[in-house]
Amino acid sequence: MTRADAIHGLIHPRSIAIVGASAELSKINGRPLKFLLEKGYAGRILPVNPKYPQIAGLPCSPDIASLPEAADLAIVAVPAREVLASIDALGRRGVRAAVVFSSGFGETGPEGLQLEQAVVDCARRHGMVLCGPNCLGFVNAFDKVYATFSQYADGETGPGPIAFVTQSGAFGTAIAALARQRGLGLGYFINTGNQADLDFSELMDSVIDDPRIRVAAGYLEGLEDGAALIRLAQRCQALGKPLVLTKVGRMASGQRAAASHTGALAVADTVFDAVIRQYGVLRARNEEQMLDMLQALAQPRPARGNGLGIATQSGGAGVMMADRAEEVGLSMPELGEATRARLAEVMPAFGSAGNPVDVTGQFVARPELLTESVVALLGDPAVHIGIVWLQLMTAHVDTLVRIFCEIRDRSDKPFFVCWVAAPAEALRRLNAEGIVVFSAGERAVEAAAALARHGQFRRRLPLAVDAAVLAGVPRDLHDGVQPSVQATAWLSAAGVPMAPVALARDEDDAVALWRAIGSAVALKIESPDITHKTEVGGVVLKLNDEAGVRAAHRDLLARASLAAPAARLDGVLVQRMSAGHLELVVGAQRDPVFGMVVMVGLGGVLVEVLKDVSFRHAPFDTDEALAMLAELRMGAVLDGVRGQPGVDRAQLAGLLSRLSHWVAAMQPWLAELDLNPVLVGASGPQGVDCVMVFRQQGEDPRFPSRPALPASSLPTRQETDR
Amino acid sequence: MTRADAIHGLIHPRSIAIVGASAELSKINGRPLKFLLEKGYAGRILPVNPKYPQIAGLPCSPDIASLPEAADLAIVAVPAREVLASIDALGRRGVRAAVVFSSGFGETGPEGLQLEQAVVDCARRHGMVLCGPNCLGFVNAFDKVYATFSQYADGETGPGPIAFVTQSGAFGTAIAALARQRGLGLGYFINTGNQADLDFSELMDSVIDDPRIRVAAGYLEGLEDGAALIRLAQRCQALGKPLVLTKVGRMASGQRAAASHTGALAVADTVFDAVIRQYGVLRARNEEQMLDMLQALAQPRPARGNGLGIATQSGGAGVMMADRAEEVGLSMPELGEATRARLAEVMPAFGSAGNPVDVTGQFVARPELLTESVVALLGDPAVHIGIVWLQLMTAHVDTLVRIFCEIRDRSDKPFFVCWVAAPAEALRRLNAEGIVVFSAGERAVEAAAALARHGQFRRRLPLAVDAAVLAGVPRDLHDGVQPSVQATAWLSAAGVPMAPVALARDEDDAVALWRAIGSAVALKIESPDITHKTEVGGVVLKLNDEAGVRAAHRDLLARASLAAPAARLDGVLVQRMSAGHLELVVGAQRDPVFGMVVMVGLGGVLVEVLKDVSFRHAPFDTDEALAMLAELRMGAVLDGVRGQPGVDRAQLAGLLSRLSHWVAAMQPWLAELDLNPVLVGASGPQGVDCVMVFRQQGEDPRFPSRPALPASSLPTRQETDR
Repeated sequence: MTRADAIHGLIHPRSIAIVGASAELSKINGRPLKFLLEKGYAGRILPVNPKYPQIAGLPCSPDIASLPEAADLAIVAVPAREVLASIDALGRRGVRAAVVFSSGFGETGPEGLQLEQAVVDCARRHGMVLCGPNCLGFVNAFDKVYATFSQYADGETGPGPIAFVTQSGAFGTAIAALARQRGLGLGYFINTGNQADLDFSELMDSVIDDPRIRVAAGYLEGLEDGAALIRLAQRCQALGKPLVLTKVGRMASGQRAAASHTGALAVADTVFDAVIRQYGVLRARNEEQMLDMLQALAQPRPARGNGLGIATQSGGAGVMMADRAEEVGLSMPELGEATRARLAEVMPAFGSAGNPVDVTGQFVARPELLTESVVALLGDPAVHIGIVWLQLMTAHVDTLVRIFCEIRDRSDKPFFVCWVAAPAEALRRLNAEGIVVFSAGERAVEAAAALARHGQFRRRLPLAVDAAVLAGVPRDLHDGVQPSVQATAWLSAAGVPMAPVALARDEDDAVALWRAIGSAVALKIESPDITHKTEVGGVVLKLNDEAGVRAAHRDLLARASLAAPAARLDGVLVQRMSAGHLELVVGAQRDPVFGMVVMVGLGGVLVEVLKDVSFRHAPFDTDEALAMLAELRMGAVLDGVRGQPGVDRAQLAGLLSRLSHWVAAMQPWLAELDLNPVLVGASGPQGVDCVMVFRQQGEDPRFPSRPALPASSLPTRQETDR
Repeated sequence: MTRADAIHGLIHPRSIAIVGASAELSKINGRPLKFLLEKGYAGRILPVNPKYPQIAGLPCSPDIASLPEAADLAIVAVPAREVLASIDALGRRGVRAAVVFSSGFGETGPEGLQLEQAVVDCARRHGMVLCGPNCLGFVNAFDKVYATFSQYADGETGPGPIAFVTQSGAFGTAIAALARQRGLGLGYFINTGNQADLDFSELMDSVIDDPRIRVAAGYLEGLEDGAALIRLAQRCQALGKPLVLTKVGRMASGQRAAASHTGALAVADTVFDAVIRQYGVLRARNEEQMLDMLQALAQPRPARGNGLGIATQSGGAGVMMADRAEEVGLSMPELGEATRARLAEVMPAFGSAGNPVDVTGQFVARPELLTESVVALLGDPAVHIGIVWLQLMTAHVDTLVRIFCEIRDRSDKPFFVCWVAAPAEALRRLNAEGIVVFSAGERAVEAAAALARHGQFRRRLPLAVDAAVLAGVPRDLHDGVQPSVQATAWLSAAGVPMAPVALARDEDDAVALWRAIGSAVALKIESPDITHKTEVGGVVLKLNDEAGVRAAHRDLLARASLAAPAARLDGVLVQRMSAGHLELVVGAQRDPVFGMVVMVGLGGVLVEVLKDVSFRHAPFDTDEALAMLAELRMGAVLDGVRGQPGVDRAQLAGLLSRLSHWVAAMQPWLAELDLNPVLVGASGPQGVDCVMVFRQQGEDPRFPSRPALPASSLPTRQETDR
């Protein structure tokens, strides 16, 4: 049996053993049985407990070995100290999937973690998959599988198009209950607990291709396996299904607290945020925003653009929504002439036929006013999503439900009702009609933005891997700081524009190199032990006469020996002074969760203060690189300020994208890479200084292995430096 | 009768005439009568309509002249074209207050606006105050005055501690209904409509000193009279009552839409935001946040600091709340030793006794665990507000209500329950117990932050006006750009440190001035017609020899004549080169709504891109100036980066505060003022360049008049330039 088969058995079991089943159906170890019976699970239920001959009319096995069959799934609800033996016995009995409720493992400290590891090792020996431990279990609402003791299952759990996987039991239960309150159906509700074996990504992956599922929603407290999350996001994209995530720990202090709570590896939130958005994940800042987004995404109509049309009963509400739309990246298009003409026909004189359309409260007397206005608005080619805002109208529920049904039937675009202080009956009836209702204007707009972003991402082309860049991928590597000449050559060969640099063998050679360049040069100390040259006074700029070059050469060697007596000195680098009016910082680093990420920022002192940088997971294409540049708060500097010429963003994006490909290919070796500064002048961007450090990684299954390399030889000095 | 008496009669009428009253009680002109009767208004109701001898058993006057008494209040519910005649007739009958429902005025265009002005003029001739037109009217729930046709009055409107005044009828009704849903009571609900006479501030001012009112809440779409809003905010501060405002039109595009809707003067939102916060107003970004804040502020316990203590059932929810707390300026203090010891006694082993305290779900079995943990948390001296987070617990409502009541009784600090997916019964019962409940963690934290900010503002000292600064207030003024020497002298006399500057009569004089200074100088062209000297090549820096000074003098005059042939040239300024490693921009401008505001920002090209500036209404003290500096995103630059020394923030704040006093005193004349740059060096900040423009204002009742000036003569050159 493959792991996939075992996981399939976990989620869609034809038989369920309950180890430690209690006859007290309100207790944790009694509740799954209660739910399975009450809600009509059609498979075989096999309680295991030596205390009872039977429970609720079902024959009860005295121990695991006596189970009448190797159940597809075992629920383990015994004290922590008995879990290891139970798992072993289940494995021997041929059971290949278990959900472990028991707590007292990794969440309690090192001892618990050891026990947890022993349980996982045992399960793996038997080819068994585990959900948990320390979890509330899961619900597969389609097949009425209630392998859970969550309070959520106390209520109605009718299936729906959402798969919800949560690392937190308590918060996840709350979110599930809120989803139910909004009439959102969960097809799957899964609590991962300690993720000793199956983690968030693998569990979500196991349910996302169910055709009844339209949206994936996750609640995260920590993340260890970034590659798996990226694969999941790519899978969701391929399926055309949105993935919505809420992750706590946005702030530095929050991350500390999360680490102490879940023991999960803290991931720097800025990198997390950048990477998941890169892969089309929709991030919800909290549970309410997640549910708002789910409402928009669980309805079947896609957004074919980001044009928002608003019809409102209150000018102020329209302004508030228009403001929010601007903030979240939706456009509020001017309406076309045909739309305006139609609105002028149907609108009252004191309404407003712009966007937002202000229909005022007159539609109470003339319902067709609202219907025709909104149908006209949605009919505008620049409008891709519609929102109708209204309030109270307790006495007009019938009329309004009829109006909204008519609008739905006369347009094929997604539209949402925002009904503030809506009567409960209206919510119920619109829900039953499949019409999405929000309780506040800004919520509706944010949800619309999520739908638009998903649509935009679906229309994006898949990444075309740049094969040419592999020419620049080196071989015959050694750890440590790489020589500047070599590093420069590799990057140049990969298409990353670099300022040529040469190593002078001695003072005379330095002079010869300067003469060959024929204009002002910089001299820099070169040593595998000195990564920050300026800190040891290791850079002299703007030299353009022989005496100066000679003096600088001597000075650099002397200063380096003084500042870093133990450093091995390779000599002095000679480099033409680069021109450029704009200074950027570009770098790559190995994120512990996601692997190689590329960073870009504007250089200079103020940037240090603002931390105005953006990140992407490598590799990425030039469109993504343009998006990185667009994220910089000071990005307007790129377009020229105070008479400075603008820079060519496409050239810069090309540099970033090619670098990202190279960096991705170098994943197994590259530890860090800094191009600081990258100077941008009239002839485009050019990396001037380069610090490249290799540190070969042990085998890490999370990161993709290095692609096959072309048989290129190492570049020589002649190829690169003049 | 004074205006105040008339307004008192409006809000607290002993008799109400209804002009245009209808016997159909569901119509707009029938609904006030229905509400007054149903809800038991104790005063006299006097319908006016020639069609009926009586309505609902009340005698009906055929016309206004026949009213049996001069009612304290008249409700005018007739078509727009009849309003003017009605107001005039009411005035003749001795009525001194009216609420005008009728629409068809300023909101429809210039013609409507003209009619509106005629109505106001008529009312003012009679000494009558008006609410409206184009409004839903108002509710005084204490006295059961329902001068409204709002849907809000269809439901329960039991009075409570909140006064809510709204410029929007539809949105305001929605907010009122949402407040009711949350169990928040409105003592007053007032819709201002077109604000032809009484505006938001005056109406709020008329109810805020009612001792039954604890909180003022407002919804704004536009603002014309900034001074009135500031007075209202000051009044609220004096009364110790928070003022919460939601104003739409945060974004530039939103402001346009608001202007087209309400016809109100658009106010730049950044200035609005800065000024209202300066005066202690709490701004809610939308209606949901407003209601969250009102829940926190309507309960009676103040926050004596900004320390937040959180107890939670979910570690993840705790992290999310801690993140939000950091973002909104609350601290999450480390708990004291005594608290930790107490928590260790009562907590389960796998909970967390830090802050947030994770009490897990164990309190279901052991309720005292939750009670004792939260009481210990609230007992910590560093904790000023507590939040308890939990979810669902449908089966444990009794226990939990009992626990929360006990916590309330054992602590005198404010604490909020955040109960996600709470059973309706729990909400109802906690509400009845006066315990504040929120539905989401981040909401509870934001509301706690509002309570803390209000507490902080209440502890603030009132502004001490700096009398010394008046020494620098000039007299004998003329409009236009002021001579640099004079402007510099005025500001210096007001205590604003300025680099001395002198006007050279001719080339020889320029050389003499340079010699007297004895170090490098800058020469600058001086002309009342050239405000931006650099744009005409009018500045030459770092001159330190006679030939250079002479050449520069000639060049400046020549260039200016070429670039601006029509400009009157006063000569050339000579100024010692200023030292300073940090460059700021300081300015003052006349905001059309609030009057003089002072701005500070960090100078340089990147600041232009980031628009990193902060504003305050003048005058303000040094604490407020320090707060301005703290708001700068690049404020860290002030503390020194890359080896640069930090600057003395207090000195800089002193400059800003003194400047603010001077510009406030100069309100009637000052049009604009730029100190650009202000250079900060080792000896403190110094304004180097100054553009000061006067333009005497017509009488404007909104802005305070100039204080009496001391009899100081204009400074001479000798006093200022060397």
